[in-house]
Amino acid sequence: MAAQQLCYDNLPMDWVGNWSGRRADLTPHSYAIYEPITDRRLTYRQMDLRAELAGKLLSEQLQLAPGDPICLLSRNRLEAIDLYFACGKTGVVLAPLSYRLAEPELNDLVKRIAPRVLFYDEAFADQAAALHLPPGCEAIELADEGEGVYRTALQAAEDDSLIEAAEQDLFTHPAGTVNRPLCLSDPFLYVHTGGTTSKPKICVISHRQMVWNAVDILASSGGALGPQRELLTFPLFHIGGWNTLTPVYYAGGFTVLLRSFDPGDALELIENEQISHFGAVEAMLQMMTEDPAFASTDLSSLESVTTAGAPCSATTMQPLWDRGVPVSQSYGLTEGGPSNFLYVQEDQSLEEIRERYDSVGKAMFHTDYRIVDPHSLEPVNGDSPGVLLLRSPHNFDGYLDDPQRDELMLLEGGWVYSGDLAYADEQGYVRIVGRVDNVFISGGENVSPEEVEEVLVRHAGIDKAAVVGVDDSRWGKVPVAAIVSRPGADIDEEQIRSYARRELAAFKVPRQIRFVDDLPLTGAGKIDRQKIRNDFFAED
Amino acid sequence: MAAQQLCYDNLPMDWVGNWSGRRADLTPHSYAIYEPITDRRLTYRQMDLRAELAGKLLSEQLQLAPGDPICLLSRNRLEAIDLYFACGKTGVVLAPLSYRLAEPELNDLVKRIAPRVLFYDEAFADQAAALHLPPGCEAIELADEGEGVYRTALQAAEDDSLIEAAEQDLFTHPAGTVNRPLCLSDPFLYVHTGGTTSKPKICVISHRQMVWNAVDILASSGGALGPQRELLTFPLFHIGGWNTLTPVYYAGGFTVLLRSFDPGDALELIENEQISHFGAVEAMLQMMTEDPAFASTDLSSLESVTTAGAPCSATTMQPLWDRGVPVSQSYGLTEGGPSNFLYVQEDQSLEEIRERYDSVGKAMFHTDYRIVDPHSLEPVNGDSPGVLLLRSPHNFDGYLDDPQRDELMLLEGGWVYSGDLAYADEQGYVRIVGRVDNVFISGGENVSPEEVEEVLVRHAGIDKAAVVGVDDSRWGKVPVAAIVSRPGADIDEEQIRSYARRELAAFKVPRQIRFVDDLPLTGAGKIDRQKIRNDFFAED
Repeated sequence: MAAQQLCYDNLPMDWVGNWSGRRADLTPHSYAIYEPITDRRLTYRQMDLRAELAGKLLSEQLQLAPGDPICLLSRNRLEAIDLYFACGKTGVVLAPLSYRLAEPELNDLVKRIAPRVLFYDEAFADQAAALHLPPGCEAIELADEGEGVYRTALQAAEDDSLIEAAEQDLFTHPAGTVNRPLCLSDPFLYVHTGGTTSKPKICVISHRQMVWNAVDILASSGGALGPQRELLTFPLFHIGGWNTLTPVYYAGGFTVLLRSFDPGDALELIENEQISHFGAVEAMLQMMTEDPAFASTDLSSLESVTTAGAPCSATTMQPLWDRGVPVSQSYGLTEGGPSNFLYVQEDQSLEEIRERYDSVGKAMFHTDYRIVDPHSLEPVNGDSPGVLLLRSPHNFDGYLDDPQRDELMLLEGGWVYSGDLAYADEQGYVRIVGRVDNVFISGGENVSPEEVEEVLVRHAGIDKAAVVGVDDSRWGKVPVAAIVSRPGADIDEEQIRSYARRELAAFKVPRQIRFVDDLPLTGAGKIDRQKIRNDFFAED
Repeated sequence: MAAQQLCYDNLPMDWVGNWSGRRADLTPHSYAIYEPITDRRLTYRQMDLRAELAGKLLSEQLQLAPGDPICLLSRNRLEAIDLYFACGKTGVVLAPLSYRLAEPELNDLVKRIAPRVLFYDEAFADQAAALHLPPGCEAIELADEGEGVYRTALQAAEDDSLIEAAEQDLFTHPAGTVNRPLCLSDPFLYVHTGGTTSKPKICVISHRQMVWNAVDILASSGGALGPQRELLTFPLFHIGGWNTLTPVYYAGGFTVLLRSFDPGDALELIENEQISHFGAVEAMLQMMTEDPAFASTDLSSLESVTTAGAPCSATTMQPLWDRGVPVSQSYGLTEGGPSNFLYVQEDQSLEEIRERYDSVGKAMFHTDYRIVDPHSLEPVNGDSPGVLLLRSPHNFDGYLDDPQRDELMLLEGGWVYSGDLAYADEQGYVRIVGRVDNVFISGGENVSPEEVEEVLVRHAGIDKAAVVGVDDSRWGKVPVAAIVSRPGADIDEEQIRSYARRELAAFKVPRQIRFVDDLPLTGAGKIDRQKIRNDFFAED
């Protein structure tokens, strides 16, 4: 058994990273991507031609070698996708940057990533100019019009008369491809997470992670998620964006690109492009269902909708359920997914989904999980909540140059520490009940803010609620709440507190309540607890 | 990047091998398998209960440890599938034996595999009794009725009153599962190939190979192959049988089990069970299309049919094309697949498939290939034929205790030497033109028997043809042909030779021609050239 010693993770193979090339071989004439803002609708073969040209720019013109990082500061646009596939072919590592970050945060990321090239969207020319690039790092604009390095490199892809010649060249001389064999263990992306509440962490995402995650979505959904007609709503600086695009591309589906999210555009595209699936954070769904066009939009092509990023309330899902659209939650984290749990429909009825709307579904086929005591890391009994540990071939490969954080996240046996509190029911449906980091101790008792919030939003007068712990000289910490009332609701602090006293133990009842217009969210759509503490409960 | 050093092939994970458990979690109530002969129609949860009970038999009652081999001599039946999934859970290695082998061949395999237990179908009690089992090896009957060790172990699965209790126990105490974490690199199956022309080779098939092959089929077909309604026609002692079952099971599809192939049963089941796909060797398709029931069978549920094992002629596919069923060829080998090439339909028209009927389609997403000179192993130019090399994460792990053969099959860089001659056209469609081992030298010239056969069967009077090289004192070897005429055709040796002289170089024209009733095939449906030489051209 000579080969048994081979570790296939470390064996260079041609197909690794060559998403666009493999798919162009299998289904060259199928449409892969539509970008409405530029009205470009491209087949898999055309996309691969673009990826080859972008790859030539990277490896020949810019002389980048496998492992060299490049930064990308861009809205969702075709040129960003070209670079993603070009990196997959050449082994260059793509580090997308969030355009929502402040300048010092971006500069900190650039310093840690040390890119060889920065590609920036023309919309972010000012932000790009403010970055302190390392010596020798080029800055290349992704422009809508004009010349520029990127556009010149991709000239053949933009010019009908050159496409045929380039295709001819590429497909009759396959040795001319820029694609090179890579290992599954080679890095593909540096994706940062967080950034609004703490210093951004930079996750090393291998080719293995991206492949296995696509595999896991396709297999777990029984082939339902993959070949669909997808509306890409998430920004491509989060892993969720790439993780929406990649499994669909992998299975030969069709993706519609929004340059940035707009509820009216999204609804129009769902109808016009016969979208069968999209993913969204709660705020996007709210905007869509509150949009004047919602009622008149034909949603009949939608087979399912998946929420991600943070728990989504039944109130937000209701208008879609009412229209017969199955909406369900999913769960994953950049470090261990990006997808780990999803809802698999066995039949077309909405009943089951509505009954279990508060669960994130079931562990995916290739995802092992444990629910453990946060201190002992031993499995908890029965359906008690504990910290969720994840293990799969789509584990991340640690943080960039941060061995101390690696040790906290990557446990013995290949387990990733999610930091999320969860419990599973007897059927294997998992519910996420909060962050273990959000838990605070009040007079010796654990308070999970998410548990208190869940009780508060059940009150008829409350639309949204956020609970945080603030310092207290007697109890250490005490819970306080920021509340968004329902329009027209006539509620006051004392009513809410007396309601909470009926539903919760005394130490969980918020000591102070602030009525606010809206809750601040992080870029990933999670409640920004630091901002709530600072803005509404600053100790003055 | 602490985890980057982790090789995920060698990391024990719960899901590895637990096909039935993972699928039972995701889609417990969907139907997985139907066995018409016993009229058992089982859900994924019921199948998993059976696998758990069979696993208890292996690991608790029989005290087998991970890595221990068991032999299986059985027709296609539910009990064989139970054992397959039970081995996946417990790490026991399943070695299916072909019931078509002669006693000395079976005894040779048993000696080399050294099983701890032999499971045999009641139909093969006599063959089982003739085997020289190693000391301590138990023989357990898979019986249709009565008691017996196997039936007693699975009593709960057969007895309605016990199912609920067992399920309750299993699903409320998941720690009670017999499933244990395995590595992708752990062996899963020992599958023998050949056996009629040479000593059987025993391939070591890892969990990695079975998972990645299922992945590759599902992804390459864009989710079309996997969740379908499948008719399993291949015997489960070939890898093709397990490779039909596993990808369908993986994606939550539905499989109908034939205890052994019968064309009338197959047609009836296609109509009654709304089969959407099946695979077949050419002989099976011929029997089906020649069956009296063919014309009146409703085939409208069939989305595609895949041939495998050996090239299939257009004549055989024609009656299905005429009924609007897309039939295409595929290619793979136990050592590097079992699936490596398949036809991916971009649209529903039959035109494209018929035009390229003689190709095996395109390389699958995760399959690298090269076409090389058999001597230098350097890539051949353009579309010249050469030997096909394959590389993918579904490479086999070598032959059992046969390092010399491993060296011939497993080349540097992870390439598997297929021994098949192939060429690719500019669109990437690959055609298999013969076995490099079948090529013989006649007067200093290479003769590929398959090339001559292809010319012969284009003659209107010829149904089938097989060419072999026989010793010749002047030329070294000369080609001779065994021919099956078409019914009613009035042809003689001289006519055929003069036809061949017009189409082929003189050294390729068969020197002798024998008219025979049929061509002998190997168990895998390939022409049995040794038998043709012996039966029709024995030097007497």
